[in-house]
Amino acid sequence: MQMIDGKTVSAQIKEEIAEQVKEIVSAGGRRPHLVGVLVGHDGGSESYMASKVKACEQCGFRSSLIRFDENVTQETLIAEIHRLNEDTGVDGFIVQLPLPRHINAQAVIEAIDYRKDVDGFHPINVGRLSIGLPCFRSATPSGILMLLERYGIETRGKHCVVLGRSNIVGKPVATMLMQKANPGNCTVTVCHSATPNIKELTLQADILIAALGSPNFVTEDMVKEGAVVIDVGTTRVEDATRERGWRLCGDVDFEHVAPHCSFITPVPGGVGPMTIVSLMHNTLLAAKHEIYQS
Amino acid sequence: MQMIDGKTVSAQIKEEIAEQVKEIVSAGGRRPHLVGVLVGHDGGSESYMASKVKACEQCGFRSSLIRFDENVTQETLIAEIHRLNEDTGVDGFIVQLPLPRHINAQAVIEAIDYRKDVDGFHPINVGRLSIGLPCFRSATPSGILMLLERYGIETRGKHCVVLGRSNIVGKPVATMLMQKANPGNCTVTVCHSATPNIKELTLQADILIAALGSPNFVTEDMVKEGAVVIDVGTTRVEDATRERGWRLCGDVDFEHVAPHCSFITPVPGGVGPMTIVSLMHNTLLAAKHEIYQS
Repeated sequence: MQMIDGKTVSAQIKEEIAEQVKEIVSAGGRRPHLVGVLVGHDGGSESYMASKVKACEQCGFRSSLIRFDENVTQETLIAEIHRLNEDTGVDGFIVQLPLPRHINAQAVIEAIDYRKDVDGFHPINVGRLSIGLPCFRSATPSGILMLLERYGIETRGKHCVVLGRSNIVGKPVATMLMQKANPGNCTVTVCHSATPNIKELTLQADILIAALGSPNFVTEDMVKEGAVVIDVGTTRVEDATRERGWRLCGDVDFEHVAPHCSFITPVPGGVGPMTIVSLMHNTLLAAKHEIYQS
Repeated sequence: MQMIDGKTVSAQIKEEIAEQVKEIVSAGGRRPHLVGVLVGHDGGSESYMASKVKACEQCGFRSSLIRFDENVTQETLIAEIHRLNEDTGVDGFIVQLPLPRHINAQAVIEAIDYRKDVDGFHPINVGRLSIGLPCFRSATPSGILMLLERYGIETRGKHCVVLGRSNIVGKPVATMLMQKANPGNCTVTVCHSATPNIKELTLQADILIAALGSPNFVTEDMVKEGAVVIDVGTTRVEDATRERGWRLCGDVDFEHVAPHCSFITPVPGGVGPMTIVSLMHNTLLAAKHEIYQS
């Protein structure tokens, strides 16, 4: 069993990005500039955003954080998005989700110019991903593909079983892995809450991607000997032994599943750090106009 | 075994659409108007377009056909698309594919205003389909769902195996059937040219959708007893016994597979007529501004 070390891979990729930024800057170019928009003071959102700002520093990007009170109106938020769309000094920006209930998150996402949508959530980017066209790819699935690639894991002809059909992980990772591409060319099965025989399907998986948000859902009897297991779950569970009172728990019962795997990602330190690196990668592509020319 | 009769269902739905058009017209509204753009004189394209024009008549729609010589430049074609985008007398329009090689089909598709893209090929419609938002749904997959619905075939919790990953059938039908919706809520597996063990997977299918374009690919040993089989294949094969010298052949060896099925679509007369009906349905939705308000 080999542990997939997302922390080390993400650090490597950030260094590679920083190298490219150095070249851009030494050629007289401008540093890539990512803007984060944060509404309210949710603990999880604050900490994600702080990690993104830190990653920007590591990559040599400029970053800005725009804060709104949790009572901000949708109109005010969208007006700011329009301003960011027009600001030629901003390469990409993200609005940290979730948003307060009085704001229609989909309307906010669709207000973002798809050419600056480095989260890859705008319908144009989602559609282009499905069609197989260049686009900003959703960060978590993109990070998973980077891990498969960096660890030289063959995907062609493999059966990938995805647990979960969310718009930010399950559906896009299924789309990406079924494409005629490398990584890709997998037979892909998507299971979810309405699947009655999940175990029967997970036992067929050469590559199992768990993205349900259900702690320790995947047990050792559900995994084929030698499978590659990617755990996308990050549920906070109470843990009195930790100073902060909680720890992150994955969708996979790591302790018992790991001995049966060829490769497995831990939680934390597996997919998590890769999500932020994908966002950095998208921001670099935005700054270089590699996806969209104008 | 029950035959799924796409001809009868499509005739019914066209009548239902015609009823709605009558109501619109008697309330002083304008008939839905679909425009077809046809480049060159490909036999298949001519006949598809003729069927669409005929279906418009049956639904009480106004239809127009715009023809271009096969040497038309991409610029001229796109200029016409821009004109149709602006024309408030046009509810929806389609550009018949395939286009001559010197024209970038994707650029043409993306030039269409997504609010008039009744084929559902524009990235915005593809993306919204994936996200689960209202959109113009790709015609063939939408026709398949209509058949499942009209025949009362339960999809929830069923394992649907899709053969083929094309942008117009395989990928969108997989997307639609995995959604939390009805029809939908299927466990979905997508197989394709890189899948080494197709038979192992098709044998698990409660619903098998064959969209490979490979005549008689699905043989009786590949189908589970009692499965629902949907055949999307329409390959022209030589047939000296027919006056025109060819016949349409599906992806399923109908003769030997049918006795094992609970439901099966024939070719022709199964999915084919439904594709055109879906286009009519999308055009009606466009005329009523039910998907996009403006």
